Amino acid sequence: MPKISLKGQSMPQSPIRKLVPYAENAHKQGKTVYYLNIGQPDIKTPQIALDAVKIHSLDILAYTRSEGSEEYRKKIAGYYYKKQIHVTHDDIIVTTGGSEALLFAFGSIMDTDDEIIVPEPFYANYNGFSTASNVNIVPVISKIEDNFALPPIEEFEKLITPKTKAILICNPGNPTGYLYSKEEIKQLASLVKKHDLFLIADEVYREFAYDGHSHYSIMQEQGIEDNAIMIDSVSKRYSMCGARIGYLVSKNKAVIQTALKFAQARLSPPTFAQIASEAALETPQSYFDDVIHEYVDRRNILIEELQKIAGIKVAKPNGAFYCVVQLPIKNADNFAQWLLEHFDVNGETVMVAPAAGFYSTPGVGLNQIRIAYVLKKESLIKAVNIIKEALKVYKD
Amino acid sequence: MPKISLKGQSMPQSPIRKLVPYAENAHKQGKTVYYLNIGQPDIKTPQIALDAVKIHSLDILAYTRSEGSEEYRKKIAGYYYKKQIHVTHDDIIVTTGGSEALLFAFGSIMDTDDEIIVPEPFYANYNGFSTASNVNIVPVISKIEDNFALPPIEEFEKLITPKTKAILICNPGNPTGYLYSKEEIKQLASLVKKHDLFLIADEVYREFAYDGHSHYSIMQEQGIEDNAIMIDSVSKRYSMCGARIGYLVSKNKAVIQTALKFAQARLSPPTFAQIASEAALETPQSYFDDVIHEYVDRRNILIEELQKIAGIKVAKPNGAFYCVVQLPIKNADNFAQWLLEHFDVNGETVMVAPAAGFYSTPGVGLNQIRIAYVLKKESLIKAVNIIKEALKVYKD
Ligand SMILES: Cc1ncc(COP(=O)(O)O)c(C=O)c1O
Ligand SMILES: Cc1ncc(COP(=O)(O)O)c(C=O)c1O
Repeated sequence: MPKISLKGQSMPQSPIRKLVPYAENAHKQGKTVYYLNIGQPDIKTPQIALDAVKIHSLDILAYTRSEGSEEYRKKIAGYYYKKQIHVTHDDIIVTTGGSEALLFAFGSIMDTDDEIIVPEPFYANYNGFSTASNVNIVPVISKIEDNFALPPIEEFEKLITPKTKAILICNPGNPTGYLYSKEEIKQLASLVKKHDLFLIADEVYREFAYDGHSHYSIMQEQGIEDNAIMIDSVSKRYSMCGARIGYLVSKNKAVIQTALKFAQARLSPPTFAQIASEAALETPQSYFDDVIHEYVDRRNILIEELQKIAGIKVAKPNGAFYCVVQLPIKNADNFAQWLLEHFDVNGETVMVAPAAGFYSTPGVGLNQIRIAYVLKKESLIKAVNIIKEALKVYKD
Repeated sequence: MPKISLKGQSMPQSPIRKLVPYAENAHKQGKTVYYLNIGQPDIKTPQIALDAVKIHSLDILAYTRSEGSEEYRKKIAGYYYKKQIHVTHDDIIVTTGGSEALLFAFGSIMDTDDEIIVPEPFYANYNGFSTASNVNIVPVISKIEDNFALPPIEEFEKLITPKTKAILICNPGNPTGYLYSKEEIKQLASLVKKHDLFLIADEVYREFAYDGHSHYSIMQEQGIEDNAIMIDSVSKRYSMCGARIGYLVSKNKAVIQTALKFAQARLSPPTFAQIASEAALETPQSYFDDVIHEYVDRRNILIEELQKIAGIKVAKPNGAFYCVVQLPIKNADNFAQWLLEHFDVNGETVMVAPAAGFYSTPGVGLNQIRIAYVLKKESLIKAVNIIKEALKVYKD
């Protein structure tokens, strides 16, 4: 039998895959499961985006330009302008989700065995994209005690080798919910300039900044125009994850020209999704105000409830819709499975994401979980109560 | 300034990219351009597929399963059953176009510097996917004199090294239009079995088989269940290239499990496109009959008109909607550019794809072009006449 590749063998699996059969089983046993493990918001997609494809007048569902239509990219530049990000349509490539933008960025700037420094915990699929691209993630540990703030910049500098090509941050962070300050971005900016590295910022959660903090994009920082590559997506912004539209944005012409070659090879991003995403740009501000309000409420309740539990540590998030919680247990993998297999409160249980999958340093984060607050407040309260009761009886 | 990768630098560009500015200029000068260079059919998408997204009732445009919904994959298996291909939904992964299926296949079975043998001329983007995957295409030349039939199987065998992991064919072929016979598939099958290689067949043009020939899929061939990986797509079949839906199909469980890890990293294929593509499976047979009829008519007229031109050679295609034509010139690149820049018949000219871009052996196919018969008959007649008149005056 012909063999699959070493790369294919080492492609990581999602940290929650192992738990899925247990969740399905819990269902079969008639349990209600609160899913705190997913990044799929329960927020309605803006009606204007849903309607746009309903009234399409296409006769032939044709390929679009590989980089997205000029008209759409001009509107995207208009959106950025309102966010104090000054780019033109030529600086933007429309991709099949932020996922593809990450793959294009990795392919455009790194060769086999090159290195990219990433503060951990980080979005688990960065592992998959780096394996697929034959490059290595070099982690810098950020700490729950600091709310997962940027680790001291010397920690990054220590890790730079001739193979280092880039630093990748997620702002605000999944799974941390941490929103980087302007000062932190400036520290990173001077480091990448000093060492001639790229700075990739995954800003797909840009819109989700709370408590009056405003999001500071790497694209706003002067002097790193040739270093900065921004990854963006409509998935979370408009709760339209199924569209599969993202953007790769850079003022570095060589990066855009190179990413465009990857884009041309795969022909075009999805057409209906572009129609919906272009319409989504007209979403009224009130939509975002409502959504942010809802997330802040949820976060507040979640943190409040969690803090009532003895022995746990929570990093209070200023952005996105995730938070990392440290539990008074040894192994969150086992705990998460046990919750689904052996525990319930009145027939209800929860599914959480063990945080170890968000770290690449072995043995770190074993007692942490990630909670996505993509459920209604009442459900969050019940879910946290289940965790609380569970911890009273759980033995590692 | 940080540098882009060697991989990015060596990503090939589409063979017609260079011509695009000349075509745009011809337009500006008021010329009519017949585009014989593209793979975007002018055929209407089935109404049932276009309507399906018009009547969608989604509130939240959510991620789907990474491999596509079970329901959709079951229907796809039903489609294959009617084509004498016996697979189950578990053997199918829904991808973002055939393009992504090719990338997943390459990633699942090849590591850096591995080799894949491909009869040339071949679909130019195979070059892009192999560069992106850090693997090397090893070409076997097929000849216009043979209508681009499968080269003698010994030619393949000679090229097998310890790095060879697979043979890739396109059936029917882009750019050749050649439809492989059952016997040719059997020869390939015994070769891949003998050497424990994968056999990837890009069957995205399966539906387009003419003159009573029927398409023989590698998935119909007994005994190579562990070797065979089929690439498929809705793009051409239903003239819905903009959907971006394809499939990777294999009975080899390890291949499916591995490709699924790549699929999970990018989360899901586009949701609206899956709705349209699932509906497209209900397209009545009469739609295909009409389309095939139209393409056969076009091909016949095209070949007939081309054969009136002195000094040219045409490979008569039995499938797809392309044909390769050898011209009595030295360099088709220059000729194609000259057509756009300096030639017209009553204000009309043509854009063709120089075939050199479909070969990877340097210097081969320089005097060949690919014509896509994706235009109405009247346009094809006029376009061929322009080529005929042009050849009378063109000097290399
Ligand atoms: C941090 C981060 N980046 C990128 C993505 C990819 O999203 P998409 O491909 O849907 O744009 C996600 C999705 O969860 C994410 O959390
Ligand atoms: C031979 C062949 N394979 C694959 C593709 C990719 O098509 P898609 O990604 O639209 O499914 C094409 C498109 O032209 C093609 O001609």
